[in-house]
Amino acid sequence: MQSPDAVTAGALIIGNEILSGRTPDTNLNHLAVTLGGWGIQLREARVIPDVEAEIVAAVNECRRRFNYVFTTGGIGPTHDDITAECIAKAFQVPLVVNAEIAERIQQRPVPPDMMETRMRMARIPKGAWLVDNSTGGPQGFRLDNVIVMAGIPEIMRAMLATLEGKLDAGPVIHSRSVTAYLGESQIARGLGEVQARYPDIDLGSYPFFRDGRYGASLVMRGTDIGRLEEVLEEVSQLIVEAGEVPHRAEDE
Amino acid sequence: MQSPDAVTAGALIIGNEILSGRTPDTNLNHLAVTLGGWGIQLREARVIPDVEAEIVAAVNECRRRFNYVFTTGGIGPTHDDITAECIAKAFQVPLVVNAEIAERIQQRPVPPDMMETRMRMARIPKGAWLVDNSTGGPQGFRLDNVIVMAGIPEIMRAMLATLEGKLDAGPVIHSRSVTAYLGESQIARGLGEVQARYPDIDLGSYPFFRDGRYGASLVMRGTDIGRLEEVLEEVSQLIVEAGEVPHRAEDE
Repeated sequence: MQSPDAVTAGALIIGNEILSGRTPDTNLNHLAVTLGGWGIQLREARVIPDVEAEIVAAVNECRRRFNYVFTTGGIGPTHDDITAECIAKAFQVPLVVNAEIAERIQQRPVPPDMMETRMRMARIPKGAWLVDNSTGGPQGFRLDNVIVMAGIPEIMRAMLATLEGKLDAGPVIHSRSVTAYLGESQIARGLGEVQARYPDIDLGSYPFFRDGRYGASLVMRGTDIGRLEEVLEEVSQLIVEAGEVPHRAEDE
Repeated sequence: MQSPDAVTAGALIIGNEILSGRTPDTNLNHLAVTLGGWGIQLREARVIPDVEAEIVAAVNECRRRFNYVFTTGGIGPTHDDITAECIAKAFQVPLVVNAEIAERIQQRPVPPDMMETRMRMARIPKGAWLVDNSTGGPQGFRLDNVIVMAGIPEIMRAMLATLEGKLDAGPVIHSRSVTAYLGESQIARGLGEVQARYPDIDLGSYPFFRDGRYGASLVMRGTDIGRLEEVLEEVSQLIVEAGEVPHRAEDE
């Protein structure tokens, strides 16, 4: 399924609150689904703490490995919001006040010491350009191939949405899936054979336990819908041969 | 908050289905909360694809950086279940059939070709020992400091639960939190000052957007409950001084 024209991405979910378990992350899934629909394949995601050395190292590693890196979290006004500084350090550029973000921040009248604190959010690495924020709050930014977004899911989604159509895209990966109440072992050999005959399709078997019964979802992913339909047919046949009923999911 | 006797962990969530967005991960949060309660701090989590080279590299990097590495996913019977092989490669040991897992697999009578497939799950790296599975299915395993568990949440949880009291533990990190409907900027300066005076406490500010209003949760984490209570009091006072009402969460 690795195609030479694939456009890839890594995600960095920045925040101690995810690692402590206090907050379950929901940004990763939204990012994966949205990017996938745009023809950008999420290849790795990391949840990392609010620690400068770790953020800098992860940004530098991932920006070289993937076409894009998307970060979420750490761009607010408090002392633990260090993402912008870390991106600047990773690229070895200074932080500068961006006039456009500053203007947006200053539109909302607040007491002077609070304004000073809010203005922290106007600092972005030199050379970065803005990622708009349709909620009206301070913008995110992009430097080279690193896109920096808020951690609050509503704001992250608003920022991400503004990038639609503005990023490089590879072939969109389509998927088909079929589910059955069976043990994976009942069809494992056949699945392996189908996978071997369709190396361009990524055929996954995902077991689940639901209402006291085991089952498996068989998911095929690839860029060629005709080939996907062939694999779907073959896998459905394996399920029938195992004496079970294939339930096809809606096409994605 | 970095204590010299901290016991740390990294998590590797293995599976294309998480990266494609098809399946939202829930294992990470359970792992973070459970380990935290045992005195093991989750310091990083990675979601990686079912690709041998990437799994091997991530295992080798993480097992050297953290006291423990917990993996989820990829230990079933199908062709895309390659975690056991990858762990063996990472440690440069062969895969061997474990008699105890084999016995459990053979307890359930199935046709011969299906049994052969299921027996894939009995192969573990040489030198590994078992992590029990109270659901009655095949066990997980542990090799050195790497603990390998299933991806199905119910089974992962059953495996993890059997490790309670069996792992090294550091001081348990306790937390306190207080929430208010205010902009983070209203108290950001004060928070920074409190953080500077309590370097042993990790003070985080997590903004949220709920019912059309912005708010922030202020979370303090540390090993000393007396110090936590002091910080809680100071932060609550900052909220009051900002003209808002502090809502204390239940103690954790």
